[in-house]
Amino acid sequence: MTFNFQAPSEIIFGSGKIDELVNIIKPKSENIIIIKGASNRFDYIFETLKSNGIDYSIYCVKNEPLIEDVDRAVTLAKTNLSNLVLGIGGGSVIDVAKAVGIMLLNPGEILDYLEVIGKGEKLTEPSIPTIIVPTTSGTGAEVTKNSVLKSIQHKRKVSMRSPEMIPKTVLIDPKLMLTLPSTTTTYTGMDALTQVIEPFISSLSNPFTDSLCRDAIPRAVDALVGLKEKPSDIKLREEMAYVSLMGGLALANAKLGAVHGFAGPIGGMFEIPHGLICAILLPNTIKVNIEAIESLGLEEDINKYNQLAKLISSDKNLTIRDLPKFLYDLNKKLEIPTLSHFGIKKSDLKEIVDLSKNSSSMKGNTVSLTETQMMNILESSL
Amino acid sequence: MTFNFQAPSEIIFGSGKIDELVNIIKPKSENIIIIKGASNRFDYIFETLKSNGIDYSIYCVKNEPLIEDVDRAVTLAKTNLSNLVLGIGGGSVIDVAKAVGIMLLNPGEILDYLEVIGKGEKLTEPSIPTIIVPTTSGTGAEVTKNSVLKSIQHKRKVSMRSPEMIPKTVLIDPKLMLTLPSTTTTYTGMDALTQVIEPFISSLSNPFTDSLCRDAIPRAVDALVGLKEKPSDIKLREEMAYVSLMGGLALANAKLGAVHGFAGPIGGMFEIPHGLICAILLPNTIKVNIEAIESLGLEEDINKYNQLAKLISSDKNLTIRDLPKFLYDLNKKLEIPTLSHFGIKKSDLKEIVDLSKNSSSMKGNTVSLTETQMMNILESSL
Repeated sequence: MTFNFQAPSEIIFGSGKIDELVNIIKPKSENIIIIKGASNRFDYIFETLKSNGIDYSIYCVKNEPLIEDVDRAVTLAKTNLSNLVLGIGGGSVIDVAKAVGIMLLNPGEILDYLEVIGKGEKLTEPSIPTIIVPTTSGTGAEVTKNSVLKSIQHKRKVSMRSPEMIPKTVLIDPKLMLTLPSTTTTYTGMDALTQVIEPFISSLSNPFTDSLCRDAIPRAVDALVGLKEKPSDIKLREEMAYVSLMGGLALANAKLGAVHGFAGPIGGMFEIPHGLICAILLPNTIKVNIEAIESLGLEEDINKYNQLAKLISSDKNLTIRDLPKFLYDLNKKLEIPTLSHFGIKKSDLKEIVDLSKNSSSMKGNTVSLTETQMMNILESSL
Repeated sequence: MTFNFQAPSEIIFGSGKIDELVNIIKPKSENIIIIKGASNRFDYIFETLKSNGIDYSIYCVKNEPLIEDVDRAVTLAKTNLSNLVLGIGGGSVIDVAKAVGIMLLNPGEILDYLEVIGKGEKLTEPSIPTIIVPTTSGTGAEVTKNSVLKSIQHKRKVSMRSPEMIPKTVLIDPKLMLTLPSTTTTYTGMDALTQVIEPFISSLSNPFTDSLCRDAIPRAVDALVGLKEKPSDIKLREEMAYVSLMGGLALANAKLGAVHGFAGPIGGMFEIPHGLICAILLPNTIKVNIEAIESLGLEEDINKYNQLAKLISSDKNLTIRDLPKFLYDLNKKLEIPTLSHFGIKKSDLKEIVDLSKNSSSMKGNTVSLTETQMMNILESSL
């Protein structure tokens, strides 16, 4: 029994908790930089900050989190002498906010620290205080130690990472998610579901992360399906937000698997929402993993997949054999398309495998997959 | 669903992890103060620090954690310009180490910050970096935000608390617990068991802390009973250390209950190990709580106690009705005495109730207990 567990110093969770934001920020700073998304849904929050004497500048992340976004926001924060970062938005916003926090005190360029396409140097200086308020339920980025940024030039999504990048304070208010559009709710929700499944069947799973996943998996499917019908149900939003948080804590400490191993490269090459890629790949990844562990006779893993089958469905007779069908059916219910819908062709798959096979997430997969097995997952998801 | 979750930034868990201590400390400081207990069992660790260029001074906590211990250690650290606290020991050592860390940068005297007997002022400055290495499995103090210190003058154990007092880094190595004497193993283990039970049935329990307790409760009893026979079994030590960690995280975020509500005042008035007090009081507290929730018809709580019965025993037919007997039998198996064994008389009980009824832990109890119910718990534990 061996594990490392890294987490924010404080997680504040609950509907209406956004009202506490002023009191959290005020003792720490009166001059902050806000990183937000394109929507103006949460501008009322900034008004409250201003009327309470907290000065701010705002940087908007329009779409995917680009390296250039971080550069521009850092320049803005330096110009205004901001000494706290507030990130309020979805995964892209959170990734930019964390990168801004760490780049303010570390010397040099982002490329010095980015993996794969950059120098991958170690971030030696701490982050300035960073408070994250997620407005979607899915990425878990609010509790992890890396930022995934996109390089347009390299057509790649790559990470910079440091334990210092784990935000100090995270405020999760499910009320903020009530206005999340239906497709975003489903896609980020499928990301959240994948993020409580993959750490549970990860080769690096441990009792601590298992206990979080065991509690979250049954909630995830119910909330996902429920929100499709009732997007304004606050109880379901709470459940989904809780699942997302547990997924973030689990993946930060037990890694993920092949679904996320593929999702990074595919997201770099094609314009598909991250959660949707996860949804598309999940059933076939589980299917190929099951074939692999059964052919290798890995009893411990087979037992874990059987547990997963019991957790994921209210039908307690479900076993490992029923898992792929359960996930195919879930995708059907949630109207998830396939990869070819986004113009991905069979001729693209080799490049995806090449880019994915050494990714950090792929290393968490239940078993080490051969290139043929990887190709198999992608081909059956076309 | 509302909760706050506060935790160390990093928890490192595993047998042999003590070997990583040098690499954890070295980048942070080369001049530290070590807080340790009376035993010399772990002096070899300090030798390794020294041979790797880490300078240190040592303060020994001989017995209970006294206010004077903190004062003296703070003076020592200031004299030597130490800029990191390493606490390596049991609950007393950890409580002193955390108090030293926070008092180094906060002005004034400890009494300014102590609750009940002091001014209870707010600690405004942060702690200097504090690394905790627990050598017992029980208190959970390595992950909580308060220190319980004893005032000889006031005959009281009282807390100072601040989120800043949560240690930044915790290293838990079950190997260090292999040499823990048998009675200490049992007493601290009973504290750990109580600390995964009380947050689970606390009025402030939440899904997050519940998931930690659900995983830990079945492990706790097996490890406790197992270690009585096989104190050198590293697997059992790992289980017990894991239970203790889960208990600490759970109680820090869902409070405790009447057992710990009583344990503070009793520990102030009499010389009894904290874990032993918990062990003595647990069965009767559970019994009185069950009577209270059944007479009030609190279905949700009754359901929770039924879950507890299923978790605590491998006999899946156990229900709420069997819980007190299960706990009495456990105490018998572990040779736990009663309160009168330590000279506590019926005439002392009124004072214990008066001192306990407004304690922080008492507020977490499943239901608010009347003074008669409190007296009932104590009398039947004499």
